[in-house]
Amino acid sequence: MTNSERIGALKAEQARGILDELDLDCWLIWVRETDQIADPAFRLVFDGDLVGRSALLFTRDGGRTAIVAGYDAGGLPDGAFDRVIGYDAGIRDALRSELARIDPRTIAIDVSRTDVGADGMTAGMRESLDECLAGTPYRERLVTAERLIGTLRGRKLAPEVERIRDAVRLTEQIFAAVFERLAVGQTEREIHAMFHERVREAGAGFAWSPGHNPAVDAGPDKAFGHLGPTDGRTRRGHLLHFDFGVRVDGYCSDLQRMVFFGKASEVPNEIADAFETVVGAIDAAAAALRPGAIGFEVDAKARVFLTDRGYPEYQHALGHQVGRNAHDGGVLLGPRWERYAGVVEGTVETGNVFTIEPNVPTETYGQVSLEEDVLVTKSGCEFLSAPQRELICLP
Amino acid sequence: MTNSERIGALKAEQARGILDELDLDCWLIWVRETDQIADPAFRLVFDGDLVGRSALLFTRDGGRTAIVAGYDAGGLPDGAFDRVIGYDAGIRDALRSELARIDPRTIAIDVSRTDVGADGMTAGMRESLDECLAGTPYRERLVTAERLIGTLRGRKLAPEVERIRDAVRLTEQIFAAVFERLAVGQTEREIHAMFHERVREAGAGFAWSPGHNPAVDAGPDKAFGHLGPTDGRTRRGHLLHFDFGVRVDGYCSDLQRMVFFGKASEVPNEIADAFETVVGAIDAAAAALRPGAIGFEVDAKARVFLTDRGYPEYQHALGHQVGRNAHDGGVLLGPRWERYAGVVEGTVETGNVFTIEPNVPTETYGQVSLEEDVLVTKSGCEFLSAPQRELICLP
Repeated sequence: MTNSERIGALKAEQARGILDELDLDCWLIWVRETDQIADPAFRLVFDGDLVGRSALLFTRDGGRTAIVAGYDAGGLPDGAFDRVIGYDAGIRDALRSELARIDPRTIAIDVSRTDVGADGMTAGMRESLDECLAGTPYRERLVTAERLIGTLRGRKLAPEVERIRDAVRLTEQIFAAVFERLAVGQTEREIHAMFHERVREAGAGFAWSPGHNPAVDAGPDKAFGHLGPTDGRTRRGHLLHFDFGVRVDGYCSDLQRMVFFGKASEVPNEIADAFETVVGAIDAAAAALRPGAIGFEVDAKARVFLTDRGYPEYQHALGHQVGRNAHDGGVLLGPRWERYAGVVEGTVETGNVFTIEPNVPTETYGQVSLEEDVLVTKSGCEFLSAPQRELICLP
Repeated sequence: MTNSERIGALKAEQARGILDELDLDCWLIWVRETDQIADPAFRLVFDGDLVGRSALLFTRDGGRTAIVAGYDAGGLPDGAFDRVIGYDAGIRDALRSELARIDPRTIAIDVSRTDVGADGMTAGMRESLDECLAGTPYRERLVTAERLIGTLRGRKLAPEVERIRDAVRLTEQIFAAVFERLAVGQTEREIHAMFHERVREAGAGFAWSPGHNPAVDAGPDKAFGHLGPTDGRTRRGHLLHFDFGVRVDGYCSDLQRMVFFGKASEVPNEIADAFETVVGAIDAAAAALRPGAIGFEVDAKARVFLTDRGYPEYQHALGHQVGRNAHDGGVLLGPRWERYAGVVEGTVETGNVFTIEPNVPTETYGQVSLEEDVLVTKSGCEFLSAPQRELICLP
């Protein structure tokens, strides 16, 4: 077994417990040609690809069945499944008879309107599942696996946290190396390329699209968001903002950092006040982040902190989970806005890894924005990143 | 515009013509968080990622509209869309009013039971689309984009063919380099690692899962298929089989090669006859492969060639299309079996790139299997790979 296969096996075992907790009898992952489009939840429990139509069945009593095309059967990790059923002509009969054997009252499937990480079944596969189950009682027993998957992704196991720590560490190392080479007059594109060179050297991947990873935002006029680097240049007296994340062994980091071109004594009050406010908002949220906290409550701590200081609310959620993806789904630390319905009412749990990323505008210098990665512990939370407490000043 | 963005723009333009040909008014790509799960058809026309719910609308009169979250709007390639509609609260109203403006009679969506490449809409997104369109006439005008996408993927443009050529060339170079180092007594794992080292050195990607890419099958007992390399060793007098493909600039190759450990004069008749039969079957299929040919007819040429010589039929399709993916979807060169229904009745077109990959068993030495990549030209087909005509003998 490879390391990744081992994590997959541990997550499958973890899923068993969560099925029981949520009173679900069975989880069905229903996929094909996963190298073309891969269910994100499939990736949690399976390191590799399947070509033919495949049904992976996990039951609350710990049963793990793989129904796969004959040519895929040999590629299953040793010991990952206690029943492997290979088929030649079609999967329908094997799936029906295996479900009849298990006879689950509920079958959780990877379909979700709200959580992309729990929505890995494609619409055509959804139709073909109905077709396969037509005339059986199981067709009416399908339910969403949203909560199962959100919980499973969210409760990071020790080896998962280790990988996120590795990704955070590498991110910080690359930030430090690039900061040594930053100078006034460089373009966003040039700075973006410095990061890419170091990610390549490290043999790491990107936590999101390389085109805007890192986001490099120089000066007051560059809109934050998902815009790639431009020919805009760093200037004395201006801010420079980064949003950067790498992927190491399949796990991600996601950090924002801010640099000022000038001496510490030259930082305008406007920037200093905004920076302190963002740091304070992060601390206010971190102080409230513990098992049992509700997503929107944690968001509110940061939001109120900065509105109390006269700043407008940030127009997004305070923080999302980080793991296999930079946006890892599940409970979100966000306001109770319509677009966050269903995910900000969830409860924070031990082992969750969140970003905390408030920002505030300045009148003259653009936005001030920071982002840290934190692990929820039994009694509170631990910063996985060394939080940025001072503006980095490059005279 | 980057090169990839340019290809995306060309494919979008090509889609316009195909919409017209198929009498479809509009193509809707409906996605979110594409770095977590990406519609394969989205990747054809868009180089990058979108985070919020996004509707990309291509109409038969050439209109290209992107309805995206405000923070995604800045990341769209310059000039790729002639209307960019950013939304803040939710996409529903913008989508409804844009559809009302276009008023299409048919809206092709990426949902397909048979073709994974045309089935990129997730089941939750499919539900939310119905919800967004509730009460409008457009909900009843949704049709599958299967034929549109199959045709669009299949008709490779010149810059796409160039990239496939590059991938094939690199594959052949790596084969040649590894063949120089092959020896009796090496394990499949060791040989697999030699390939990986060279793929890394070349800065290329893998056309499918690295775990079984290349497939390395030493000796008569190793089952072909999707099984990774084992500790089985190469032996004098045995065959060694490879199935290997790389990805260069987003485009793939897929080739099988066979090696014999011994002198050419020592090749047993059984192997020689099987090898000639496979080569002959490839030539028979290639002779029939031209625009207008039907998928199952081309398959039949190879299938009959080898059954006429007393071999059993191969238990799969003769060839699939190659492009963005090793298995690129669309028309398949395969038999009219139930599992290939709907894709082997299609018509071969100029610009399609197919594999041709028949195989036959021997009694003593395992299977003999080759795979070539060919481009359909105006009058026939052209081998993109230098086809293997002789067994490679390593004394």
